[in-house]
Amino acid sequence: MSAAGSSDEELKSGVYKGWFLEINDQWPGQAMAIKVKSDLFHGKSEYQDVSVYETETYGKMMTLDGVIQSTQRDEFSYHEMIAHLPLFSHPNPEHVCVIGGGDGGVLREIMRHDCVKSAVLCDIDGVVIEQSKVHLKHLSCGFDDPRSEVRVGDGLAFLKEKVSAFDVIIVDSSDPDGPAGSLFGEEFYKVVHKALKPGGVTCSQGECMWLHLDLIKSMMQCCRGIFSNVQYAYTTIPTYPSGQIGFLLCAKDAGTTFNEPVRAPSDLMMEALQYYSSDIHRAAFVLPNFARRKLDVNLPPLTFK
Amino acid sequence: MSAAGSSDEELKSGVYKGWFLEINDQWPGQAMAIKVKSDLFHGKSEYQDVSVYETETYGKMMTLDGVIQSTQRDEFSYHEMIAHLPLFSHPNPEHVCVIGGGDGGVLREIMRHDCVKSAVLCDIDGVVIEQSKVHLKHLSCGFDDPRSEVRVGDGLAFLKEKVSAFDVIIVDSSDPDGPAGSLFGEEFYKVVHKALKPGGVTCSQGECMWLHLDLIKSMMQCCRGIFSNVQYAYTTIPTYPSGQIGFLLCAKDAGTTFNEPVRAPSDLMMEALQYYSSDIHRAAFVLPNFARRKLDVNLPPLTFK
Repeated sequence: MSAAGSSDEELKSGVYKGWFLEINDQWPGQAMAIKVKSDLFHGKSEYQDVSVYETETYGKMMTLDGVIQSTQRDEFSYHEMIAHLPLFSHPNPEHVCVIGGGDGGVLREIMRHDCVKSAVLCDIDGVVIEQSKVHLKHLSCGFDDPRSEVRVGDGLAFLKEKVSAFDVIIVDSSDPDGPAGSLFGEEFYKVVHKALKPGGVTCSQGECMWLHLDLIKSMMQCCRGIFSNVQYAYTTIPTYPSGQIGFLLCAKDAGTTFNEPVRAPSDLMMEALQYYSSDIHRAAFVLPNFARRKLDVNLPPLTFK
Repeated sequence: MSAAGSSDEELKSGVYKGWFLEINDQWPGQAMAIKVKSDLFHGKSEYQDVSVYETETYGKMMTLDGVIQSTQRDEFSYHEMIAHLPLFSHPNPEHVCVIGGGDGGVLREIMRHDCVKSAVLCDIDGVVIEQSKVHLKHLSCGFDDPRSEVRVGDGLAFLKEKVSAFDVIIVDSSDPDGPAGSLFGEEFYKVVHKALKPGGVTCSQGECMWLHLDLIKSMMQCCRGIFSNVQYAYTTIPTYPSGQIGFLLCAKDAGTTFNEPVRAPSDLMMEALQYYSSDIHRAAFVLPNFARRKLDVNLPPLTFK
């Protein structure tokens, strides 16, 4: 071990002495390190670098442009929450759309809802879908359901053709630094609004309150100009930067009260859920002071049942 | 960057090419990395290696035996929650004890409660206290309050002499792998029980549910044999392993209902709090299914006010 400050070369994101280091300008000065056992895939798609690793203690892990997308050990937290927060906020979601989510994990969770009649997923990168089907079967099992349909293409272009088509739209994107950039702007959210049926809701990967409060605040302000109700919730997940990730939830109708779910998992579904419950749903909207103040969130009173 | 698996030497905890890597057998296969700007102190006390760094983006950071104890950027989450969860669960805490906590951060939070008449802190390692006073003034300001008293010594031995002396005992310890080992066993909790006044409560650093559920379960089972009410809560904190840390809360009397606070911060105190609120208090006890099932936790109904 050399002493601090004696470095003669800068470390960059990648695998170093058997450890994957997630160094990135989006979270300067900090990095998650995951011990890698073997490389399962490295490739450059039309849009990004795609890698799949077998790790020592986190199972299979996919990275895009050097950023962790999921690990087998903790993915359930993200996938359950990004799917079930909006789906249990809607009284009867029948037609669902996923933008991004090419690994299939969100689709897997959507399919647990018996009321869902169709779920169409549109991811820009076919390599992500392919590699998930080869290496991440715990996620890509979501593609097996006959109610699902997969498109490879631009999410914004896909949604532009849709009017009042979906009850729920889930935006499972990577960070704005990359091919998902167009999914973070005002134009995209106007298109999402138009593509939703009356009473429809949308839920987007909403970045981490410990890292990106300014970005979250500007996204919420943008969405408050388009939707009737905009809220922020979060989940814990060890392998995302700072150990948490948030969700931006927007409703077409003012009557949608996100922090009080309108449906609950069946007993059978609850057995399969490792993270989500109705009480976790309610608690996910309770923000620490530093985030609540910045985001100007005031929630109606809540009751744990 | 070398490819995965081509390492010819093992990385160990310490500073490597300007990054502090928190590699440790207590969380195998994962490590937090924090970019270091300069070294402020390195020393070997009677009990452990003590280091203080100036970091690139997390302010000042203290490590003990290569494990992060606090960073200036996110310490408020841990210190507010380990102090205010028990203090707001007690109707009138006048006499408080801290075991460990030598950096002063918990003491700083305790002193925000006007009802507190005395707070005695007992940490085994005087070097931690000294170095905090030199380098971590944002934490050690807790020592300045005339209601505080500091002892350097063994926490178990200190508490053994006390009978019905404290309303609240807070155990701000490092992990069980080290000098804090004696603070995790049955003998210690029996001594804590005896040292508490009737109606007294205790709150201990309770490890991370994503990493140490078996340890947490056995600690809770042990405490359920000694105390009338035992609960587990948690907070988010980016620089602790997996981004969360938990708290083990035990009450001498069955009437103490931890997940519903019996007091609330004054308006003046709320202005100073960056994390804790009454609603965060309530939400901190709502566990994801995987943890709730393992820990066999069933909470009474809760209401957000």
